[in-house]
Amino acid sequence: MTKKDAIPRPEARLPKGLQDISAQEIRATEAMLGTIKGVFEAYGFEPLDTPAIEYTDALGKFLPDQDRPNEGVFSFQDDDEQWLSLRYDLTAPLARFVAENYQAIPKPFRRYQVGPVWRNEKPGPGRFRQFMQFDADTVGAASIAADAELCMLAADVLEALGIPRGQYVVKIGSRKILDGVLERAGVSAADKGKHLTVLRAIDKLDRLGVEGVRLLLGEGRKDESGDFTKGAGLAGKQIDAIVSFVEASGGDRDQTLGGLKSLVEGSAVGEEGVGEVSAMHDLLTAAGFGSDRIVIDPSVVRGLEYYTGPVFEAELTAPIKDKRGQQVRLGSVVSGGRYDGLVERFTGEQVPATGVSVGVSRLLFGLQLLGKYQGDEVQGPVIVLVFDKDRMADYQKMAQSLRAAGIRAELYLGSSGMKAQMKYADRRGAPCAIIQGSDEKARGEVQIKDLVLGATLTSIETARNI
Amino acid sequence: MTKKDAIPRPEARLPKGLQDISAQEIRATEAMLGTIKGVFEAYGFEPLDTPAIEYTDALGKFLPDQDRPNEGVFSFQDDDEQWLSLRYDLTAPLARFVAENYQAIPKPFRRYQVGPVWRNEKPGPGRFRQFMQFDADTVGAASIAADAELCMLAADVLEALGIPRGQYVVKIGSRKILDGVLERAGVSAADKGKHLTVLRAIDKLDRLGVEGVRLLLGEGRKDESGDFTKGAGLAGKQIDAIVSFVEASGGDRDQTLGGLKSLVEGSAVGEEGVGEVSAMHDLLTAAGFGSDRIVIDPSVVRGLEYYTGPVFEAELTAPIKDKRGQQVRLGSVVSGGRYDGLVERFTGEQVPATGVSVGVSRLLFGLQLLGKYQGDEVQGPVIVLVFDKDRMADYQKMAQSLRAAGIRAELYLGSSGMKAQMKYADRRGAPCAIIQGSDEKARGEVQIKDLVLGATLTSIETARNI
Repeated sequence: MTKKDAIPRPEARLPKGLQDISAQEIRATEAMLGTIKGVFEAYGFEPLDTPAIEYTDALGKFLPDQDRPNEGVFSFQDDDEQWLSLRYDLTAPLARFVAENYQAIPKPFRRYQVGPVWRNEKPGPGRFRQFMQFDADTVGAASIAADAELCMLAADVLEALGIPRGQYVVKIGSRKILDGVLERAGVSAADKGKHLTVLRAIDKLDRLGVEGVRLLLGEGRKDESGDFTKGAGLAGKQIDAIVSFVEASGGDRDQTLGGLKSLVEGSAVGEEGVGEVSAMHDLLTAAGFGSDRIVIDPSVVRGLEYYTGPVFEAELTAPIKDKRGQQVRLGSVVSGGRYDGLVERFTGEQVPATGVSVGVSRLLFGLQLLGKYQGDEVQGPVIVLVFDKDRMADYQKMAQSLRAAGIRAELYLGSSGMKAQMKYADRRGAPCAIIQGSDEKARGEVQIKDLVLGATLTSIETARNI
Repeated sequence: MTKKDAIPRPEARLPKGLQDISAQEIRATEAMLGTIKGVFEAYGFEPLDTPAIEYTDALGKFLPDQDRPNEGVFSFQDDDEQWLSLRYDLTAPLARFVAENYQAIPKPFRRYQVGPVWRNEKPGPGRFRQFMQFDADTVGAASIAADAELCMLAADVLEALGIPRGQYVVKIGSRKILDGVLERAGVSAADKGKHLTVLRAIDKLDRLGVEGVRLLLGEGRKDESGDFTKGAGLAGKQIDAIVSFVEASGGDRDQTLGGLKSLVEGSAVGEEGVGEVSAMHDLLTAAGFGSDRIVIDPSVVRGLEYYTGPVFEAELTAPIKDKRGQQVRLGSVVSGGRYDGLVERFTGEQVPATGVSVGVSRLLFGLQLLGKYQGDEVQGPVIVLVFDKDRMADYQKMAQSLRAAGIRAELYLGSSGMKAQMKYADRRGAPCAIIQGSDEKARGEVQIKDLVLGATLTSIETARNI
């Protein structure tokens, strides 16, 4: 054993649920984010950036997992022993920002923010502990027009990304309508735990189907792994009422609204909710967004506790297949809703707010399976090979001359021979390699090896400035 | 006291040393980063992204502050009790990435990365606990041409950002030359603690001047606040030798090299260092980078322990004044060097590497004081005002029509009257506001209030599609 081996070496590995992002993926993401940003800007939103770290109490606990209220977040203590956390979304920091700067900001305050968020959760396939969100929010606007606008925005974003009309849908639900239905079914609004359990059961309709939701509304459900999730404990009639509510969607907005009206009749909050969604419908229709783009779907409730009014989500409806030809269930790629209580946490005064969040990775994944945003639009650099190690200065000058001419170029900086250098140029996606041996040098020429067409060799006179 | 007041409310505030970034600052930063990225790409570097969180042992401890080896980093335990840390730079994660993916990556591996890093340090003016770095590194290249190239890159970046030649300088130093000088002065290379103290003393030349450095090389120095920093404890003659070394810079590269040669004569490592810098000089000269852009300056040593060869930094030399007319000492805006041992920590095999890091905030600060990158290039949206609340649908349609025509537009979504709405439009930097009251509506017209020229009112016929 050599002396070096005696020193313990750290293992080069990433913690679970974290990932490195390749050049191609970065380029694809940037192109997609650029398009989304363009639409957000067109709607008058302005960028804002908040730090990754916030006081734990300022973030609050608004994660979907009620069973582990103290988990889900990466937290640590500051040197004054106050608790800090990595942000788990971009909404809670926005609420902190607005409360902190309320006097100074224009109202309504319209901002977009893009950046990573962190969840200290069990990772899974496609489920990471760091991922990116891209949010747009309007704070200080009680008007339902703000919610309607965000649905328009979601539709416009998807079309700007190249999803044809008819291959996506924005769905509008309403917490108030749900509350009305629950009220009529005799589920007490005071029992917040039960209310949240019902909410999350409905939110799982997509994944579990009606029967799964029925179990979660009733006694509970055992999943494939054998884990049992306790249900809301509702009676059969109550479950029937809720299920007929979540199934009330479909067709055009007018029709759905008619059905919902009868389901909440007599419930003040329910009727208020139908009124709001109905007003959104009118605004959307006037702005030219018909039921082919934006529908009303009561099964959309969103799993987050803090929503207080309309909620919305967008999904791609075109059949998406993965590389093995299997149908992919992507879920919602944009989601959001109204949250009128989040700033109030700090100030005691209600500040109405509504927003949407784009699930960046999921949306990109879907777009890529549809053949868009592949991230391959940037060509590799021209590689100047090193035929003669004593002539590095000449070769470096060649690379610099190419750059000066606007051509992406790189001098081979390794120590391998010509064969390995050619392989390197190939791996880098170089369009061509430049070679100058002594023969070419004597003739004042360089060889240009075309790496796209293959072995074709061209020899051209060296330009005067090379 | 109302019931609501009884609930304790969190305070809306940011932890110390963290900041929110305004729209203007974000736009300025993005514009600057775009330019830098363009140069990095032109040199053949490819983007890579690594997560914010790494295993603490994988990051290692390479922060400049030797006195607090366990501090400086935000750390927390994973649920399996392994320690995690937020990255404090982009170099340590790169070393982890290269070690982890060594077989799969092209070699040399050339990547750039931009993103926030975190330091759990005492914040101060312009010193934050989250800030952005933009790095370019070449891993797997022992050739000094890789170091020369990074100096060229730094110069090209500054010129691309609009700094004229002559108003910036890239300075090259060498750890090996320093070691040679120390060897000749009788400072043992085996005493790593003393070696590092000397390094950091020299690194402070800019801030403390020669007398300050002398004190830190000797017994120690008491700063303005009365805090005492223990010195390296060198003898007067040793201090003289080191000071004459750090003062050996200036003039053209040939001259400086001549002076350095005599200072390290007889020291193998010192002569090797001079040989390397001399080779860089030849490569730079051939590529057209003269002493007007890149100089040799032995006082450049950089404070980080892991550098093993040439080190470099770039600074702006034009006099920069702040808003009060005071001269600003900006310090280096790009810095880096060769670190051949960082990947070896994991693999046991030496992987030569060299890189540069752009101090994003500091560089932007300097550029802005020079009148560049103000971030004001994006105009606010046209604001459609709400004259009649019952006609929101009409107004939303107008905003949407403007967007469809490629004009940034926003419907006023608050609940205030016309005067406050005009004020809002003004604050948002709107070029104009659109107003349609009942009179205009009857005539099929809208009022366009020009907010740049002031109170000028124009009334035009409503376009058919509005």
